[in-house]
Amino acid sequence: MTAMDTITYRPARDELAYTFGGRMPVAHVRSGDILQVHTEDCFGGLVRGPADLPSQVCRMPYLNPVSGPFFVEDAEPGDTLAVHLAAIEPARDWGVSSTFPHFGALTSTSHTATLQPPLEERVWVYDIDRQAGTVRFHATASDHSIDLPLDPMIGTIGVAPGGFEARSTIVPDLHGGNLDTPELRAGTTLYLGVNVHGAMLALGDGHARQGEGEACGVGVEIATITTLTVEVIKGVSTAWPRLETDREIISIGCARPLEDAYRIAHRDLVAWTSQLTGLDDLDAYQLVSQAGRAPIGNVCDPNYTVLATVDKALLPQPQPVHDGVHARQRQRAAGLR
Amino acid sequence: MTAMDTITYRPARDELAYTFGGRMPVAHVRSGDILQVHTEDCFGGLVRGPADLPSQVCRMPYLNPVSGPFFVEDAEPGDTLAVHLAAIEPARDWGVSSTFPHFGALTSTSHTATLQPPLEERVWVYDIDRQAGTVRFHATASDHSIDLPLDPMIGTIGVAPGGFEARSTIVPDLHGGNLDTPELRAGTTLYLGVNVHGAMLALGDGHARQGEGEACGVGVEIATITTLTVEVIKGVSTAWPRLETDREIISIGCARPLEDAYRIAHRDLVAWTSQLTGLDDLDAYQLVSQAGRAPIGNVCDPNYTVLATVDKALLPQPQPVHDGVHARQRQRAAGLR
Amino acid sequence: MTAMDTITYRPARDELAYTFGGRMPVAHVRSGDILQVHTEDCFGGLVRGPADLPSQVCRMPYLNPVSGPFFVEDAEPGDTLAVHLAAIEPARDWGVSSTFPHFGALTSTSHTATLQPPLEERVWVYDIDRQAGTVRFHATASDHSIDLPLDPMIGTIGVAPGGFEARSTIVPDLHGGNLDTPELRAGTTLYLGVNVHGAMLALGDGHARQGEGEACGVGVEIATITTLTVEVIKGVSTAWPRLETDREIISIGCARPLEDAYRIAHRDLVAWTSQLTGLDDLDAYQLVSQAGRAPIGNVCDPNYTVLATVDKALLPQPQPVHDGVHARQRQRAAGLR
Amino acid sequence: MTAMDTITYRPARDELAYTFGGRMPVAHVRSGDILQVHTEDCFGGLVRGPADLPSQVCRMPYLNPVSGPFFVEDAEPGDTLAVHLAAIEPARDWGVSSTFPHFGALTSTSHTATLQPPLEERVWVYDIDRQAGTVRFHATASDHSIDLPLDPMIGTIGVAPGGFEARSTIVPDLHGGNLDTPELRAGTTLYLGVNVHGAMLALGDGHARQGEGEACGVGVEIATITTLTVEVIKGVSTAWPRLETDREIISIGCARPLEDAYRIAHRDLVAWTSQLTGLDDLDAYQLVSQAGRAPIGNVCDPNYTVLATVDKALLPQPQPVHDGVHARQRQRAAGLR
Repeated sequence: MTAMDTITYRPARDELAYTFGGRMPVAHVRSGDILQVHTEDCFGGLVRGPADLPSQVCRMPYLNPVSGPFFVEDAEPGDTLAVHLAAIEPARDWGVSSTFPHFGALTSTSHTATLQPPLEERVWVYDIDRQAGTVRFHATASDHSIDLPLDPMIGTIGVAPGGFEARSTIVPDLHGGNLDTPELRAGTTLYLGVNVHGAMLALGDGHARQGEGEACGVGVEIATITTLTVEVIKGVSTAWPRLETDREIISIGCARPLEDAYRIAHRDLVAWTSQLTGLDDLDAYQLVSQAGRAPIGNVCDPNYTVLATVDKALLPQPQPVHDGVHARQRQRAAGLR
Repeated sequence: MTAMDTITYRPARDELAYTFGGRMPVAHVRSGDILQVHTEDCFGGLVRGPADLPSQVCRMPYLNPVSGPFFVEDAEPGDTLAVHLAAIEPARDWGVSSTFPHFGALTSTSHTATLQPPLEERVWVYDIDRQAGTVRFHATASDHSIDLPLDPMIGTIGVAPGGFEARSTIVPDLHGGNLDTPELRAGTTLYLGVNVHGAMLALGDGHARQGEGEACGVGVEIATITTLTVEVIKGVSTAWPRLETDREIISIGCARPLEDAYRIAHRDLVAWTSQLTGLDDLDAYQLVSQAGRAPIGNVCDPNYTVLATVDKALLPQPQPVHDGVHARQRQRAAGLR
Repeated sequence: MTAMDTITYRPARDELAYTFGGRMPVAHVRSGDILQVHTEDCFGGLVRGPADLPSQVCRMPYLNPVSGPFFVEDAEPGDTLAVHLAAIEPARDWGVSSTFPHFGALTSTSHTATLQPPLEERVWVYDIDRQAGTVRFHATASDHSIDLPLDPMIGTIGVAPGGFEARSTIVPDLHGGNLDTPELRAGTTLYLGVNVHGAMLALGDGHARQGEGEACGVGVEIATITTLTVEVIKGVSTAWPRLETDREIISIGCARPLEDAYRIAHRDLVAWTSQLTGLDDLDAYQLVSQAGRAPIGNVCDPNYTVLATVDKALLPQPQPVHDGVHARQRQRAAGLR
Repeated sequence: MTAMDTITYRPARDELAYTFGGRMPVAHVRSGDILQVHTEDCFGGLVRGPADLPSQVCRMPYLNPVSGPFFVEDAEPGDTLAVHLAAIEPARDWGVSSTFPHFGALTSTSHTATLQPPLEERVWVYDIDRQAGTVRFHATASDHSIDLPLDPMIGTIGVAPGGFEARSTIVPDLHGGNLDTPELRAGTTLYLGVNVHGAMLALGDGHARQGEGEACGVGVEIATITTLTVEVIKGVSTAWPRLETDREIISIGCARPLEDAYRIAHRDLVAWTSQLTGLDDLDAYQLVSQAGRAPIGNVCDPNYTVLATVDKALLPQPQPVHDGVHARQRQRAAGLR
């Protein structure tokens, strides 16, 4: 391995991006570089207390900003980009959540359209205690409070889509984007297919934690300082986003209705299992059917997200994924601390 | 508490039931009784090896038999039945799974109808080792095999539906039925609304384990000897099935598309959270959004199943559910061993 | 043909049925008989003015009553029942519609569950003028009114389901039931698969007219006097409900999500087209893709309904359906007037 | 009105566009101009016979080209663009359809993902006889043929989306795009909200006809010479695409699942009805529920399309839409012939 550069990027407000695709790069990175990125929260930092109603202080389409895109040297269409999340540090000692008019899983929406008025718009401010590893919830209509485990994650990370498209950062799809899954925590490697010259990686929308499905449409939103490393896997294409952790391989499907997200993720995990183990398709289907888990990412974004996951220990004689790129980056990340 | 009776029921083949509702009771049980029920597997025990293709050896509608129904004394419409799963013992040292023509999540089906021919129908036989706590998968097209953790569960359990209906045992819905979730393991208490005089509880369709979503449509199917206790909670209605474990409260939604199952389960968990803690609805919505999990039960049955769950430890000052009926039955179950 | 009997059936209030299946027959009919059936409206006639809010004057599950079931002689499982709607006469000079809490397409519902309160419950009373052929809409919040064409139809018609089931009359499915399509007007022949000895035909839920999808969940509900004839087609099974008019053949799919209802109906119409013309499956798929229409029945009931239809004149050299049973019954019906 | 210019645009092959948004304009038009546009078929004219399998002769993402975009003078975000289709002439005497691997309503797809192999890919060539007004279908596996009515339409027409997005021409959404409805025939006026300076109108994907839902995923695809006129309606925003014909007003919803497309279209039609007549929302909901139709556009594209439509004659005392812009353009179009 050659000497690694550490690249730090902190966007000015007017450098924030609201699409994947259609943007010029803000910096170049090479395989093996350390990239430290400051990310704003999904409200651009404008919601700081109960009086800051998102629909009033934010202006469409200036929601869910990402930092980037980063041009990854040597990444070409048809390659795979392996992005390892080495660390995700909350940038402030508070996080914020809210309801938002006609957005979320337990409300009618712009698309699940009804004649009902929206739910009340309300803001929740959480205390983050990094030492204790907690996020404190405070009720707004009573004086209850409770500590939840701190579990920082990146909600939105992706590359430029193919087909000359530029997609809102609200959308999760083939290119990644607003995946909104707690599995995108430090220690995870994300595999994304490269669609354009330089890949054009960008990220943002940190959460101090979120529940599965992100029911109210908003996690515990935070600004972060996120450290990542990237590697280009040449000549290997990746259709849908995939994750690898020390324990699991994970395929991600993004679609509506939710069962199509489930189907996409599971067909992909069956193919991946088959490829790593040499099982035929039906044997892999059978094994995943009994050994798999299917955590839901989001049920609020323009595409819903479902993950299909299996423990590597439950696969018979698997090959390492991409020659062990996860372990390699994991080790490199360990060296950073 | 009065002296408990232990009732053992082992159905003859022609006593197996294929609906919830529309059947006369096979036995009476009272709150506090111990009920030991033998259940057949979903194929009625007819699929025992690779040559026993389900579509050939089974005949519609004689699939997914349940044992029962049991008339629960004192259970009336408007009450809730608390069913505690004390023990689920595999009745044989093998289990079986299969693909089934046009059934499952990764195939076109009778309802997600396409012009494609069905996937190949194939049978997998698993070895169950109760001592080791394992279920061994054997590939059919190669010689791979791997041990998976044994995690016995009941796939189908419910009461008679309301509105004079009788529903196939394949269907999960308000009355319970084919819920197909691994959470229905020993140690769990199931709450079901009572719709008819005597509730008419029945159960079957044991699995040695299953993945989330039961992708191929079939778990590791087993006959079981299942021990349960019941209690009637008078004057308290329950709309959708709910579960309680030592750690969690869980609401279950059954519907298509899958997002409606998610919505049902989460609206119910929000209401439940609100009722146990005194949080207002939006505060409960917020807390569940950040603290909840949403395991998928099945994505293959006539209704899909999603669970909404939260750890009791993450609720601020909760009341015990139904005055602690779970803990009480849990203790009673402990005394049985 | 032997001499036809005319059977008139007018149910007493306590004879009304709320399920398909699970009921004893109220009368016997033979192929060729004329059956004249009085049907109540979906509210059992209890909603007669703006003050009669359905959720207050009706009691679950006593909604959507049907008249019957009629035992059809010689109808056995595996046969097809051809039911010709000869005439549908509104029984009163008014009809009624309403919103209903958490029911309908433009509201959250029991299944598309949200935290929003229901829409206002409101009743609309329509004037029916049989001479003029109109149904008059009166606005409730202003003094607008407008005449719509009278187009009487039967919302709910079906046979007993298979598999020992009894299904609520609110549900449309394989057995027919709450199909809620304007195509069920006089002049149409309905084909239903027979599941039980005697078929057990029942019908109700007349509409003076309804829009496609029945958006608010309720048509212009009327009591009717409906005249029909039946014929048993021996040894020919029918999976999903089918219709035939002078102009069209129509397949019906009932499912959620709505695209599955579309898929079911179209796969069935492709198969039917193929069978009538001798086209291979892909040629029939192609022809239906260019020549077909897809009217939506309902988007509010437990299953949604989509029809797939093609003009007989656009099929190359088609065989008559079931040897011309539609034309034959149509002629017989003409003789009744 | 000032003198009208007639602008004719015929794109060279390398001028064809594959996105809405992200492209420089090819010409400028003003309100009142006549715009004559040559459009290629969805295959770029490369599929001309049975041997030209689309998946072999076409290359992703070079499918469904549009001609444009046209910069409309004076069109600003917040305005509405009224586009009147004055004439749609097939440019050749043949049209073409096909199946396409894993695309269409009666096949598993990239999103409704299964493990099944794709349907056979096959091409159908149709004869177009403009004099007779027919499109002739020829079976491929037998020698059947039949004439269908010629009913030319534009499948894809839209403006640049908002939020800095560029969307594939395969997608229908708020900005129009691949709406795939037969209602986009000559004589119809399309209303689209303007999202960017100059609107950036583009169109293509003519069909000699298509069935409702475009079941196989492909209409009878043709190149066209399409004549249109545009008018900018200042200061009036339009959320979802709307149509007006001599007889009807029509709202369009684009979404998955299909019921959300239905909901969007109907909520929009309720609001439009309310606005044109002065009915309150619930009265408008009721009227649309009884008087509306709901033709399906497509059930194959990334978003499905449903239309909600009502006859203007069934609205009580309606105002003309946008001061009669449809009638005005209709008259202008009549003057062109």
